[in-house]
Parts: sequence; structure tokens; C-alpha cells
Amino acid sequence: MSDPAPVTIVGATGALGFGLALRLGQAGVPIVIGSRDPGRAAEAAAKAAERVPGASFAGLGNAEAAAANETVVLSVPFRSQSETLTNLKDTLRPGQLLVDATVPLAAAVSGKATRLLGVWQGSAAQQAAEMAPDGVRVVSGLHTVSAALLTDLDHALDEDVLVCGDRKADKAQLAALIERVPGLRCVDCGRLEMARITESLTPLIISMNVRYKARAGIKVTGLPAELWPASSS
Amino acid sequence: MSDPAPVTIVGATGALGFGLALRLGQAGVPIVIGSRDPGRAAEAAAKAAERVPGASFAGLGNAEAAAANETVVLSVPFRSQSETLTNLKDTLRPGQLLVDATVPLAAAVSGKATRLLGVWQGSAAQQAAEMAPDGVRVVSGLHTVSAALLTDLDHALDEDVLVCGDRKADKAQLAALIERVPGLRCVDCGRLEMARITESLTPLIISMNVRYKARAGIKVTGLPAELWPASSS
Repeated sequence: MSDPAPVTIVGATGALGFGLALRLGQAGVPIVIGSRDPGRAAEAAAKAAERVPGASFAGLGNAEAAAANETVVLSVPFRSQSETLTNLKDTLRPGQLLVDATVPLAAAVSGKATRLLGVWQGSAAQQAAEMAPDGVRVVSGLHTVSAALLTDLDHALDEDVLVCGDRKADKAQLAALIERVPGLRCVDCGRLEMARITESLTPLIISMNVRYKARAGIKVTGLPAELWPASSS
Repeated sequence: MSDPAPVTIVGATGALGFGLALRLGQAGVPIVIGSRDPGRAAEAAAKAAERVPGASFAGLGNAEAAAANETVVLSVPFRSQSETLTNLKDTLRPGQLLVDATVPLAAAVSGKATRLLGVWQGSAAQQAAEMAPDGVRVVSGLHTVSAALLTDLDHALDEDVLVCGDRKADKAQLAALIERVPGLRCVDCGRLEMARITESLTPLIISMNVRYKARAGIKVTGLPAELWPASSS
């Protein structure tokens, strides 16, 4: 594989974003961690560097972080998603790949983490697509991957990342990035509108984690060996 | 295991119900196939007996079939679910276990099989629970299992059945039945309201099957070995 392009993770001070930063960093991807508070971002970057010596982590405020790289992962609580995208509307630019990992858990409005809110646009990913500036390529993914397992670097991952998006090439680009992490396989789940299904798997998995004291994930059975033919990217 | 009690499958003339009939029959469970048309039910039973010699299959009209056994699987197209339950309201009786496998695909109203209808009660399973007579114990499951793979008896199954229901003992009872089929593991997915999530996996899987020319299923990773402790049944 060629030298990986750097990636920004907005919200990498949270559990999922931080775990993803660790794993991608370990896979050789330079990571910029974005947070509303640049101080917290720098702190998270330092913590990540301690966990993965030799990897590249920097911490910046959200706008600087989002401007820094061509790929931006948005991994914030649903209650902050809309505000974050509003704040980034003069920062995000056409051609960037925006990877939305937001889940509209009812916990955002003091409900349960095992229930989902209805989002007017259909899903958090579709809200992101509506709010992102024209030309930003929005894909959706990472909803079924356990933050705890990503963060536990001794754990050998073996699960799928369900990816939705309106353009095959955008999804293939995300897959190529994520599959640098050993044990993660990306599965094309169709158009962005399918994110209303993949997002709903987070509350299901949270409920299983509670019930079984587990760190559950999803694997799709019965698929062919080659899920991302080069021709599609 | 003790001698299995017989099971009725209403809608076993359809692909999923027929595949389930074959697999349960092969596992030694006597099967009554229900259909609106008793002639078609008898035909399906004969076809099943041909596929699984030595197993027990009978075909009856829906009401006779639903009255015949303590466990009734409802595996009909969503467009027929409400009508079928209305027709069975004087037949189903307290104490029976009703296993709803219905999926509210938009195909029911000439939409796509990769999209879901909104059901007022939340899910097809919750509609079934509302419509079933008091005392009928409703559980939900089987939405992610491929009818084609069930029917292909040469295929070694290796996937999960996601089970929802309001009482643990009812779910454990369904799990004990389904897990007679080698390669099928049941996972407790929580209360019946969670069926709105598990039902939505059918359109997701249908879309994968089309995209990848596959017969996809779901496996939950990261769970403990024992999912149905005897104390819960």
C-alpha cells in the first residue's frame, strides 16, 4: 500500500473516535484529533501518542482540524452533530470525504442508549449530507464497532464495518482506509439512506453489551471474498 | 434433548417458512404447514416430505394449523399479516407461543424490498402482539436468515437468529427450538420493541444479496459462549 494520507477525526476525545485514532495511528495513518477545545484535543493526542509510540498524532480545534486533511471523520454525540456541522460550514470544502459515525441515540435527549431518535432527514448521516457544503462527499460507517475493543490494542479485531454512501468510489475510499486496521472488513451497505438501518444497530449492540456483559460487533456471513473490486474505486 | 413438540408454520408455502419447515423437520420436529388454501398446504407438505424423507409434515388450512400446536410461527408477507391475525383471532389461544417473522418491506405496497415501511405500532412484531389474543406469547425472530440457505439442505448453516420478546422464558423457548437446527445460534436482542431494529435488517441483507450476489446473514461477534442459561427458561 502507498503511504497513507493523514486523517482528521473530529470528536476523537470521545471513546469511538479515540479508539479509531489509536488503531489508524497504529496502522501508520497520521491522525489529527479535533475537539471544540484545542487544549482537550492536544491532551487526547498526547494520550494517543503514549499508547502508540511512533505514530503521528496532533490535536487542534475543530475548524483547524477539519481544514487540515482531505478525509474527516465526524464522531461526535448526536446532540452536537448539527452544531458541529454548522460551525464547520465555512471550513469543509468540496472534494473532502466526510465520514459520519454519528448515532441518533435517544440518550441525546435524556432517553435510553438502547433506543433511537427519529431524524427528519432519515438518519444522522443524511442530516450530515444535508448540512455539509456542496461537493463534500459524505459516507457513513463505524456504527457497529465497539469503542472499547478499538481502544483495547491487545484485542485482535475480527468484525465488519458497515458502510453506506451514494457513490461507490467514496465508499471504496473509506474501505481502503479502514481496512488498514487488521481485522476490520468493510461491507458496502448501499446508498446513504441505508444509514437509518446501520445507525440503528448501535442501540441493538449496546443492549447486547449490557445483557451479555459483552463487547459485541457484527459480521456479515455469506459474502464473497472480494468486496471492493479495484474497478469501483 | 427430549422429543420435540410439533410446530405450526403459517405461511410455510413461502420461501422462508418452507426453508424453516425443512430444517426443523430434518431436526426431528414434526411440522404442520398452514396456508390459506389447504390444498397448497398439503402440496407444500408433500414437497417437504420428498426433500426430507423420514420427517413429519402435514398441511392444513391456517385456522386448523394454528390450532394444532402450542408453537405457531407466522411467516407471511407483511401485506397479509394483519388479515391473517384477524382470521386467527378466534383460533389462537392463551399460552401459545407465536413467533412472528414478518418484515414490513416496502414491497408490500409496490415499493422496494430494500426499504421498510413504518408500522404504527413500531414493528410488525408489535403489530402481531397487539392483534394476537390476550395471553398469546409473542416473540420475534428469523429476519436475517436466508430462505435460500435454509432451503439448500447441503449448505452448512453458520449464522445467528436475532430474537426479541418481552419475556426471557419465551425467547429461551424459541431459542431451544431453533437451535435444534445445526449452525443456527439464537441471540437475545431485548424486548419486543427492538424488533423494529431486527426487522430492518432484512432490507439491508436483501440489498447486500443483490449487490454481492450473495446469501448474506448476520453473526454477532464478541458474545459469551452461553447465551441462554438454563435458569432463564
